[in-house]
Amino acid sequence: MTHRIAIAPSGFKESLSAARVAEAIASGVRRVLPDADLDLIPLVDGGEGTAEALALASGGRLVPCTATGPVGDPVASHFALLGGPGPLTAVVEMAAVAGLALVPPDLRHPGATTTYGVGELIRAALDAGARRILVGCGDSGTSDGGAGALQALGARLTDRHGRELRRGGGALHELEHIDASGLDPRLAGADLLVACNPYNVLCGKRGVARVFGPQKGATPAEVELLSAGLERLAAVLTRDLAPAFATAALDLRTAPGTGASGGLGAGLAAVGARLLPRYDVLLDGLNLDARLARADFVITAEGALDHQTVRGKIPAEVARRARAAGVPVLVLAGTIGPGAQDVRAVGVDAYSAILPAPMTLVEAIGRSDEFLADATERAMRIMALGTRLAPLAA
Amino acid sequence: MTHRIAIAPSGFKESLSAARVAEAIASGVRRVLPDADLDLIPLVDGGEGTAEALALASGGRLVPCTATGPVGDPVASHFALLGGPGPLTAVVEMAAVAGLALVPPDLRHPGATTTYGVGELIRAALDAGARRILVGCGDSGTSDGGAGALQALGARLTDRHGRELRRGGGALHELEHIDASGLDPRLAGADLLVACNPYNVLCGKRGVARVFGPQKGATPAEVELLSAGLERLAAVLTRDLAPAFATAALDLRTAPGTGASGGLGAGLAAVGARLLPRYDVLLDGLNLDARLARADFVITAEGALDHQTVRGKIPAEVARRARAAGVPVLVLAGTIGPGAQDVRAVGVDAYSAILPAPMTLVEAIGRSDEFLADATERAMRIMALGTRLAPLAA
Repeated sequence: MTHRIAIAPSGFKESLSAARVAEAIASGVRRVLPDADLDLIPLVDGGEGTAEALALASGGRLVPCTATGPVGDPVASHFALLGGPGPLTAVVEMAAVAGLALVPPDLRHPGATTTYGVGELIRAALDAGARRILVGCGDSGTSDGGAGALQALGARLTDRHGRELRRGGGALHELEHIDASGLDPRLAGADLLVACNPYNVLCGKRGVARVFGPQKGATPAEVELLSAGLERLAAVLTRDLAPAFATAALDLRTAPGTGASGGLGAGLAAVGARLLPRYDVLLDGLNLDARLARADFVITAEGALDHQTVRGKIPAEVARRARAAGVPVLVLAGTIGPGAQDVRAVGVDAYSAILPAPMTLVEAIGRSDEFLADATERAMRIMALGTRLAPLAA
Repeated sequence: MTHRIAIAPSGFKESLSAARVAEAIASGVRRVLPDADLDLIPLVDGGEGTAEALALASGGRLVPCTATGPVGDPVASHFALLGGPGPLTAVVEMAAVAGLALVPPDLRHPGATTTYGVGELIRAALDAGARRILVGCGDSGTSDGGAGALQALGARLTDRHGRELRRGGGALHELEHIDASGLDPRLAGADLLVACNPYNVLCGKRGVARVFGPQKGATPAEVELLSAGLERLAAVLTRDLAPAFATAALDLRTAPGTGASGGLGAGLAAVGARLLPRYDVLLDGLNLDARLARADFVITAEGALDHQTVRGKIPAEVARRARAAGVPVLVLAGTIGPGAQDVRAVGVDAYSAILPAPMTLVEAIGRSDEFLADATERAMRIMALGTRLAPLAA
């Protein structure tokens, strides 16, 4: 009989887009099952590659544009205009203009980096006629609570002397007042959706400065300064902006997603954006649940499978949905790290690493395409062996 | 239902004995199938670890002894005395006294290394009362055609001036005469069996000097000198010894196994040893075929799976036998190299690598126990997933 296999992977950071991962897996499957009915569903999580992947999937296009990068220099960036029916929809991927990869390692001071370019991309999307803008979060290099984006959109953030605040989260503790009168008026007529990881919140013990500050390069003292600044930002946003926008009911300190991308979620929410669980936004239109349910089994993949995977990464999301449909799930991983086994609890039946031999990370990344196809073939043959046996109570 | 699984692996060179490989695989299986009926059958191929493994499997013991190493210095070595009924049987593992691992890298001149210690171990086994001696070949660091072993056993190899030949294959082209009158007389009453890879022959285009000389450190000129020396040895052995022993019918140049361990096979055959396909000798008493046939599936393993595997390595032998019984075979490999896919033609259904992440060979070797158990668990879960599917025509 012909097997129906859904291939719904993430991209591999620094090496393969989700589309290329899906193709590599498909080629490995075809070596074993040339007649299988393969449904390729490359998935994105809002971070690097999201705009390109959604443009491709929808038959839309990428629009190149230059904008202010996270350390203040102009960078070559882009946003997507999606194809398909409905209002013209743009995708602004924050990582494409304020991602950690755009911050040189010697400039990784999260107190100084800015989301200014995100605001510029949103304006460019409005210029292009977009009526609906999805903002993808993830892989950010900033911790400014979206202050830079608000400035680029026309808001004035001032200190107690009425002077415009300098850029970066490190200045936020000096914030006294926000004047939204200069805000781009087109925002009011557009639907701004922020695709967030709901685990990320702006303030408190699990606040974004404490959880992600260190990996963005902050010292313990900088983490405390950033935390205080973000507390201050939340207070001023709530006082000065919330009454004017439909976000009065939202606690900007602790609502799910307020901490997305160094607090960009909170900043955009304060001017009317809706913070939504990222997969609800990003998978919209893919008909993912139905496609998973139709499959005999699902193959997903991730660059690194570890304890973070269950906290909202793509294989965990795919597994939850596939389990609901009673469909088994296999994960292929570039590397397997501590805590990987946690994924079994969310619906992953089996997983496999892809490396054939000892090698450096650089070589592994350079050959990940080939290794992924080969490892898929190997896993399919092990699975095929299993089909000849009585059920294993695993 | 309870699954019956035969675990019949090779050791991993430089890291794990076959017994430890089997244990690691068993522990990985038990994580998935705690109630499985596991049959552990650690296997050896005549090379490193053979004496110890057979002593263990038979309830016998290792006898330590000092003997002449491949470069002439004394080395701490051993042979095995097997347990069980029948005539007292010893196992002399040539690698334990003349293996490549005993040749320091800066002394890897195969023209100079000797099997003298192999002859000493055979005499020590005779001293211990052995009536049957299995000589395990493999992992050798010599190319002397067994000349050194013959000297240690009492033969005189002389040049045209009647002078005793110096040790090593590099002197063999000067061989003029062999005098066997001083040969240990107990040899005549003992059964000497050489466990050979039948693919290895002494002379000709696929002769042992040409095929293995380079990896033992020989330059092209040395390879030619060695080849000429081994031709000369075959001619003199045939003329001077064959009439006295029951080997007149054997072509010492090209018979299967004459090239085993740098030609040790030919030298011992000339004094009456029988050259036998190694697995016929080494698996004797293990009842391997019946145990494989009883299993629902077989797991075997090897340090490196590549184009050499089908040329007589353990996973290929296990697969051939399991296929004859219609039992599927999974191979776990420390590394997967070019040509690994050839194993499918001999009966391997599926194989998997064990590494979870990029790393150095040294780290991989140091953690191979853990990685093997983890990879077994992963493979078992993929197989278990397969048992839930309709047969995959793979």
